[in-house]
Amino acid sequence: MKKILAVDAGGTKLIYSLINEKGEFLTEVKRVATPKNIKDLTDVFKKIISDYEQEADCIAFATAGAVNLENTKVESSTPNMPEGYNSLDFSKLSTKPVYVENDANAAAWAEYKLGAAIGDDNTVIITLGTGVGGGFIVNGKLLRGKSGRGGEVGSMKIKSQKRICTCKRFDCFESYASGTGLKITAEEVAQTDIIFKSSIYKEKNPKDITTYDIIDGISKNDDYSKKVFDIWKHDLVTGLINIVNIFDNQSIVISGGMGKFIDTGEIENMINSEIVVSPVKVKLAKAGNYSGMIGAALLAYDKYLS
Amino acid sequence: MKKILAVDAGGTKLIYSLINEKGEFLTEVKRVATPKNIKDLTDVFKKIISDYEQEADCIAFATAGAVNLENTKVESSTPNMPEGYNSLDFSKLSTKPVYVENDANAAAWAEYKLGAAIGDDNTVIITLGTGVGGGFIVNGKLLRGKSGRGGEVGSMKIKSQKRICTCKRFDCFESYASGTGLKITAEEVAQTDIIFKSSIYKEKNPKDITTYDIIDGISKNDDYSKKVFDIWKHDLVTGLINIVNIFDNQSIVISGGMGKFIDTGEIENMINSEIVVSPVKVKLAKAGNYSGMIGAALLAYDKYLS
Repeated sequence: MKKILAVDAGGTKLIYSLINEKGEFLTEVKRVATPKNIKDLTDVFKKIISDYEQEADCIAFATAGAVNLENTKVESSTPNMPEGYNSLDFSKLSTKPVYVENDANAAAWAEYKLGAAIGDDNTVIITLGTGVGGGFIVNGKLLRGKSGRGGEVGSMKIKSQKRICTCKRFDCFESYASGTGLKITAEEVAQTDIIFKSSIYKEKNPKDITTYDIIDGISKNDDYSKKVFDIWKHDLVTGLINIVNIFDNQSIVISGGMGKFIDTGEIENMINSEIVVSPVKVKLAKAGNYSGMIGAALLAYDKYLS
Repeated sequence: MKKILAVDAGGTKLIYSLINEKGEFLTEVKRVATPKNIKDLTDVFKKIISDYEQEADCIAFATAGAVNLENTKVESSTPNMPEGYNSLDFSKLSTKPVYVENDANAAAWAEYKLGAAIGDDNTVIITLGTGVGGGFIVNGKLLRGKSGRGGEVGSMKIKSQKRICTCKRFDCFESYASGTGLKITAEEVAQTDIIFKSSIYKEKNPKDITTYDIIDGISKNDDYSKKVFDIWKHDLVTGLINIVNIFDNQSIVISGGMGKFIDTGEIENMINSEIVVSPVKVKLAKAGNYSGMIGAALLAYDKYLS
């Protein structure tokens, strides 16, 4: 059995554990707050590694940001991480081999190897949270692109409604199909559709209606809430259809906070009634909250230990 | 040196020649009209093969339609080919190995192996003709998907303008960025924009304005024609940006009849100013009219002879 020290490096905390080549946890999962400057962060990385360096056969990082093709550095800007993060050479942190992968890619790999998409050599993991992220497996390999930045499906333009996205462009998939997108749709419908006048939320300022209000409203049979969620679902399905027509993937795996609100069977039927390729399965992610660490560990194993 | 009999099976004609593993033509390229029923077509395939069967090490077909993962059969409906085409088992046509690939995929492979995208392990070939087609190379392999139908980028929804597409859906990339799309845009602008009143085409019925009129109008400094073409270019770029953000590809190779009207440098700049991944190159295809045959031959060589 091999032992991989896996670290999930996020903007708020660093989470880590020893994992074996089957993705099983060998030690308790530990966590520490992410330091706010690059020197302290580097020191904490070194400290974590030194605690396990004897035992671990290699080190795996799952991190925010686009990772270079050598899996040694983060190359994009990463606003949640300390300044200078993209100048850190991870390979210098240890005498053992160090492997770095983008966290969404790593999580996608975990879903493919031991989660919801086992055996699906062409699959797409879509994260629906505050934003929309994607991890793509093509012919059994991660789609990383020329510079490790591939999979930016949140930036796919799907409409021409002039809704501004957090990226400053218009009409990105992310600006409709994310949790934030649902909230914006709720506000738009409240401001433009007479249906709002008979809603349980009619006294609320449209700007203050939340994602949870909408989900709660559906359970209370509120027509306004149902309409908002229907629009959100159709926008989500529009983006997913675009993806499936290009990738002809076996499955779409949905992860992220919005996942729990969707009926995968319904979404699957909506997609399959419109695509020009053969039918796709829609599933919820099941590799768990630590899928980034697990995926990074399995990728590091494949590269250095197998 | 190996010899591959390569056949391009189109709705109008069958084109064929012996090709070697370098993609070089060893015999004159011959052509014959495509028979209108499946029995006659099968007989003509057999006749072509029997003429070269002694000499050829294997047989390669590039064909319209989605090809199964075993590369032995066309699985989708192919309106331009005789009824029953998708029940034909190509592997039974010869005692030599037979390989079938979708013509767009085969042409993409030719661009990757010896055309405009040599060395670009992540590249996309976009055909802009009557419709819009795509062939995708990811990690140095063809993206074929679970059933060989991948790459249907023409069906990607990019707007919400309710323009109907030939596929009966709305707002497909193909309905904007194809030659047909340019003609529809020309008609729309003529009907809705006052700029048409001072156009050299103002006496024409908007329905009769052709793609060539627009191209010709630009050379005559006609503002209406320039506006139509600008809209078309922006729609093209919208679709290409979506693609590059997902694939982070080195290059986009443009083929098809509309390719000659675009300034690749201008399109490249428009894309690179908006993408969230690193810059892409835009190039014109250069594997030539026989790229489908060449790509199929090289793929057949890789599978059976290398």
